[in-house]
Amino acid sequence: MRAVATTIGGIDMFVPFAFIFRQAELFDAASMTGLQVLLVAGTHGNESNGPWLVDQWLLDPALLQTHGVTVLPVIGNPEARAAERRYLDRDLNRSFLPELMAEASPPDREVRRAQQLLSVFGPEGLKPCQIVIDLHSTTSSMGSSLVVYGRRPADLALAALIQARLGLPVYLYEADQAQQGFLVEHWPCGLVVEIGPVPQSLVDARIVAQTLLAVEGCCEAIAQVQAGSALYPDRLVVHRHLGSLDLPRDAAGRPAACVHQNRQGRDWQPLRHGDPLFQSLDGGVLCFEGADSPRPVFINEAAYAEKHIAMSLTKREVWPLAVEWAGALSCLVSQ
Amino acid sequence: MRAVATTIGGIDMFVPFAFIFRQAELFDAASMTGLQVLLVAGTHGNESNGPWLVDQWLLDPALLQTHGVTVLPVIGNPEARAAERRYLDRDLNRSFLPELMAEASPPDREVRRAQQLLSVFGPEGLKPCQIVIDLHSTTSSMGSSLVVYGRRPADLALAALIQARLGLPVYLYEADQAQQGFLVEHWPCGLVVEIGPVPQSLVDARIVAQTLLAVEGCCEAIAQVQAGSALYPDRLVVHRHLGSLDLPRDAAGRPAACVHQNRQGRDWQPLRHGDPLFQSLDGGVLCFEGADSPRPVFINEAAYAEKHIAMSLTKREVWPLAVEWAGALSCLVSQ
Repeated sequence: MRAVATTIGGIDMFVPFAFIFRQAELFDAASMTGLQVLLVAGTHGNESNGPWLVDQWLLDPALLQTHGVTVLPVIGNPEARAAERRYLDRDLNRSFLPELMAEASPPDREVRRAQQLLSVFGPEGLKPCQIVIDLHSTTSSMGSSLVVYGRRPADLALAALIQARLGLPVYLYEADQAQQGFLVEHWPCGLVVEIGPVPQSLVDARIVAQTLLAVEGCCEAIAQVQAGSALYPDRLVVHRHLGSLDLPRDAAGRPAACVHQNRQGRDWQPLRHGDPLFQSLDGGVLCFEGADSPRPVFINEAAYAEKHIAMSLTKREVWPLAVEWAGALSCLVSQ
Repeated sequence: MRAVATTIGGIDMFVPFAFIFRQAELFDAASMTGLQVLLVAGTHGNESNGPWLVDQWLLDPALLQTHGVTVLPVIGNPEARAAERRYLDRDLNRSFLPELMAEASPPDREVRRAQQLLSVFGPEGLKPCQIVIDLHSTTSSMGSSLVVYGRRPADLALAALIQARLGLPVYLYEADQAQQGFLVEHWPCGLVVEIGPVPQSLVDARIVAQTLLAVEGCCEAIAQVQAGSALYPDRLVVHRHLGSLDLPRDAAGRPAACVHQNRQGRDWQPLRHGDPLFQSLDGGVLCFEGADSPRPVFINEAAYAEKHIAMSLTKREVWPLAVEWAGALSCLVSQ
C-alpha cells in the first residue's frame, strides 16, 4: 500500500478520499456497524512522527497491538505533508468550525479537507468512526501527553483509563474563544496525543516509539471497555486550561522578549510568583506576578508564535471519577 | 536601531545594504583600514538565535564583550528571516560559488544577496572585513561547535585559540563536491559557529547564551592576536569530514528508514562496526558496517533532508599546531 502514499504526494492534486488503509486487512474486516476508531496522523503537515508510525504499520501490521480494535488510519493533511508545512491555507486543526463545515464551496483547502474527513469518517460518514485519536507532536518538552477538549464524559472516561495505564498527563482544553475548531470535537469521543520535544519536519525514532505506546494504550483501553473489563481509576488528574500568555511585544508587535532560560523545557512544572518568565531583548528579566502557581504547557511551541502563544497556563486538578463517564464510553463502544 | 529591523521585515522588498548596525557606536568607530570582523546572523532565515543575539546587542552594547575588536553585525538573509524560511530561492550558504558571484543579473535572490554581502563587507568591499563569524543553529545535538572549511592557516589558528579557550569541537569540512559555496570561504578568515539542538524558527534563551559565549570567545582570541598576546595550544583537535550518509530510500526515492533511536542525539560519539544506525519502516535495524569508528555530526538535521544527508561522518584527529597558522592570522589582523 505504499503506492497510496505516492498518489497523495503531489502538491497540486487533492485526492478524493485520500486515506491510507490496509486494504485487505483493514477494510475487509471493518464492519459498517461495529466500533471503528479513526487514527489521524499528520493533521499538521510538518509533524512527521505520527505519519511515520502509520507508514510503518502499513508495512508491518504486527507492529501495533490494536487489542482487536478496528483502527482506520488516515493522513490528516496529505497536501501539507507533501509540502512539509503545518498547513497550506489555514490550520486544519482550527478548521472544524460549524460555520465552515456548512459552507458549500469553501475556498481554503483545509476547510475542504475537514469536510471530506467528516464525510468519510465522521459519525455519519461513509466509514463511520465513533472515536478519533489525533496524533500530534510539539517542539515543547511536553513528553507524552493527552489533550482533551471540554468535558465530554466519554473523553474523560477514555483519558482516565489511559492515564491509569500509562500515567500520561492530561491537558484539558476548554473555554478559550481564541482557539476553536479542533478536529476531535467533531467525533463523539476523541483525544489528541501530543508528544515532544521534537523539531518540526523531523522523524525521531524515540518520538515514534512514544507515539506507538500511546496509541496502543488507547486501543487497550477501548478493547477493555468493549469487553466489559475496564478497571477505572478512582480519579483523573487534569491540567485545566486557564488561558495563554503571549511574549511581551514592542509597539510594532514584534517579540520584545523570549522565554526565560530557566522556564524553557519545564512544561507541567509549577510557575510560582516571582519565577523568571521572560528575558527581554534589552537584558531585563520579567518575572511571573500571578498567584496560584499555574503549570505552563506548550512552552515555546514553534507553531504557536503566529498564534501569539508563548505558553498556556493550566491548573492541576484531581477529579473523582464520575460514574456517568464510564457509562457514556460503554454506551458509545457498544453501538 | 530597532527601526532598521523593521525596514527589512517586508517580504517583498530587498533593501540595498540591508545590514543592521549601531550607527553611532559602531560605524563611527569603524576605521576603513583597521581590522573589522563581520558577524553574520540569520544566514538561514529560520535559525533565529543568532539574529536574536544581534537584536539584543543593538539594544544593549554592553551585552557582548568584544574585547575591543570592531565587530559589524549583519543579518545574512533578512528576506528569508521575514518569511521564517531557511531560504527563498536557494540556500544562501551554498550560493557563494565563484561562477554565481560573477553573474551580472542572477535570478535567485540569495545569489544577489551573496553578491551584495561581498560588495559591502567583502575584503574588497565598501566596509571591508577581514574575518567573518557566521552564526548557525541546528536541530542536531551538536552542542556548541565550530565549523572550518578547508585548511586555511588563519582559520585553523583562530579555531585553535577558541578551542583552547572554550573547548569547542571543530568540524573540518573539506573535499566534498556535493556541498559547496559556503559564505565564510569568501573572506580571508572565517568560521561558522554551529549550536544545537534547537528546533527551527525558535528562540531558545539557552542557545542564545551559548551563541554569545562563542562570539565572545572569537573576539577574545582575535583581540589577543591583535595585542600579540595570543597563547596558542600545542595542538588542534579536528573532526575531519569523511563524507555523508543518506537515509536508505525506496525505489521511488522516499525515506525507507529513520535514524535509529540509539544514534539520535549522539553527535560526535564514535559509530562502531555493528552499531544500530537506521530503523527501516518495515521494522528492520540497519547496522553500521564500516570500520574505523567514525564520529557522526549533523545527525538528523531537519534542513538536510532535502540535501539527502542523514548525518555526516568525521574522523577525530589531533594535529600539532603549525607555526605558519599563527603567522597567517597575525599577518591578517595587523593589516
